Amino acid sequence: MHETAKKVIAGEVRTASRLIRDIDDGNAEVWPVLKDLYAHRGNGYVVGITGSPGAGKSTIVDQLIYHLREEGKTLGVLSVDPSSPFTGGAILGDRIRMQRHATDKDVFIRSMATRGAFGGLSRSTKSSINVLDAMGKNYILVETVGVGQDEVDIVGCADTTIVVVPPGMGDDIQAIKAGVMEIADIYVVNKADLDGAEKAANYLTAMLELDSAKYSGDVWKPPVLMVEAVQNKGIPELLDAIKQHARFGPSFDQDYARNKALKKIRNELAEMIQTSLIEHCQAYIDNGSMMGKSVDAIANGDSDPYTESEKLIHRFLNSN
Amino acid sequence: MHETAKKVIAGEVRTASRLIRDIDDGNAEVWPVLKDLYAHRGNGYVVGITGSPGAGKSTIVDQLIYHLREEGKTLGVLSVDPSSPFTGGAILGDRIRMQRHATDKDVFIRSMATRGAFGGLSRSTKSSINVLDAMGKNYILVETVGVGQDEVDIVGCADTTIVVVPPGMGDDIQAIKAGVMEIADIYVVNKADLDGAEKAANYLTAMLELDSAKYSGDVWKPPVLMVEAVQNKGIPELLDAIKQHARFGPSFDQDYARNKALKKIRNELAEMIQTSLIEHCQAYIDNGSMMGKSVDAIANGDSDPYTESEKLIHRFLNSN
Repeated sequence: MHETAKKVIAGEVRTASRLIRDIDDGNAEVWPVLKDLYAHRGNGYVVGITGSPGAGKSTIVDQLIYHLREEGKTLGVLSVDPSSPFTGGAILGDRIRMQRHATDKDVFIRSMATRGAFGGLSRSTKSSINVLDAMGKNYILVETVGVGQDEVDIVGCADTTIVVVPPGMGDDIQAIKAGVMEIADIYVVNKADLDGAEKAANYLTAMLELDSAKYSGDVWKPPVLMVEAVQNKGIPELLDAIKQHARFGPSFDQDYARNKALKKIRNELAEMIQTSLIEHCQAYIDNGSMMGKSVDAIANGDSDPYTESEKLIHRFLNSN
Repeated sequence: MHETAKKVIAGEVRTASRLIRDIDDGNAEVWPVLKDLYAHRGNGYVVGITGSPGAGKSTIVDQLIYHLREEGKTLGVLSVDPSSPFTGGAILGDRIRMQRHATDKDVFIRSMATRGAFGGLSRSTKSSINVLDAMGKNYILVETVGVGQDEVDIVGCADTTIVVVPPGMGDDIQAIKAGVMEIADIYVVNKADLDGAEKAANYLTAMLELDSAKYSGDVWKPPVLMVEAVQNKGIPELLDAIKQHARFGPSFDQDYARNKALKKIRNELAEMIQTSLIEHCQAYIDNGSMMGKSVDAIANGDSDPYTESEKLIHRFLNSN
């Protein structure tokens, strides 16, 4: 086994930190280490937290950390922010909100921000989850910024996915989109003290009622919880809901858990193929300065992006 | 020239509709048509509109359409919603808000929702913009849902990008992320009548002041506009700002416009390569049922996603 993998499994924080940074940087040297670690994953339970900016996700994560630590659980926390590399991260706030856990050696908090020309954030996040799992963390919390497709992909693979909704302003609660609703195992309306919180909760409940046929029988029906994260109100209930959901799947149907696991593997594999293939192609094209020639040809009106992309792909495929 | 391309250039709405639907469906037969149309793009001015869900983007788009129609301009409008394919689009609202233009033949409104296993939304959106441009539309408005990386990629290539911000709730205006700030040419604080609107505007202005070195000299400094879209307040000023920005680049520096155009082409080409390459690979893997075998091997603990992805990529590259 690779020396780095041994150290991560032994729980060495500095080695794990460097590994996650290397994953985030897209450093190809991490691959043999990740292969070793994959077989040593423990039973870390992955909780994904998503929702609009300003919904209060970081505060909820902070409170969940607090309660799980009270129970003696160890934690890994990944904060995923695809938009940050432009100028280096969230402007303010998020990291500060979790500051009180910074000195707790059983809480390992890292930010992911990978954003190469061709993406790769989802692959990096999943690899980092595997690292935290191999370190032996009991819970791995993955918080994302925004509600784009990247985020849906990332948190959609968690064991339990929480969608956090701010109090509705007017009719705008309608802006909660179908894709996000599909991945939610638990809804949280945060800032329950504000106007519009009840409206938001009622709307979500009504949406779930519309789909009631889907939730009949032995199917998990996402609860809608009211929370005031800054006051720590409703957080124990949220933790209970997470634990209920964790017990739910396997309790009624072994096939359910197996199918969920297979789907997760399939998604992870598809993503790795995608990201790696693009990296290979990019390296080939960059190496031959082919991109610049094609861009010039298009700019001068001698060609178009459809013709040039076919040409470059053809060359790449024949170079192997 | 392809018959379909001729009809699109002639402005045939049904042909253009079918073409955009085919683009959205990832139908490869559209490629020869898109090549023909690329050379026949006009001078359609592309305005991107993004911002958090609930910020009121659709209402702003609706009002912009109204004012541009008053000026006799023709319009194409693309509503981009990557999360919709799960259950078929926004739950309510967005389409309804633009309904009053539905019978206006000079306003061509379409939704994009492409979301194959391997993405492709950005490529589809750019191809659809090219179609609207070839139809001769004066303005092309592209509205996105959410603030994920997909959205940043899509609207970041517009000639003018508007970032819409809802009134700040508490400190949560901080949740406006750096990546989104990088792409904004104009900020709009919508719902200016609500509490927190001024706070949001002050925050944005302060953020821009912090970066004042960046905005010294002949550089466009994004204005922060207060708008009440439902009351049509501030919309003429927004339109003025768009026009000022359109005149700004070329006015002081021809190189500015040229470099911007080259960067746009480069991004478009990179995306097309990425999406097409993945499609080729996916077709190869699906055809050989290789994915299922790899997933089983990983699930049984006989392999890991890192090894299997390398193996499948290797096979694909050697199959060509």
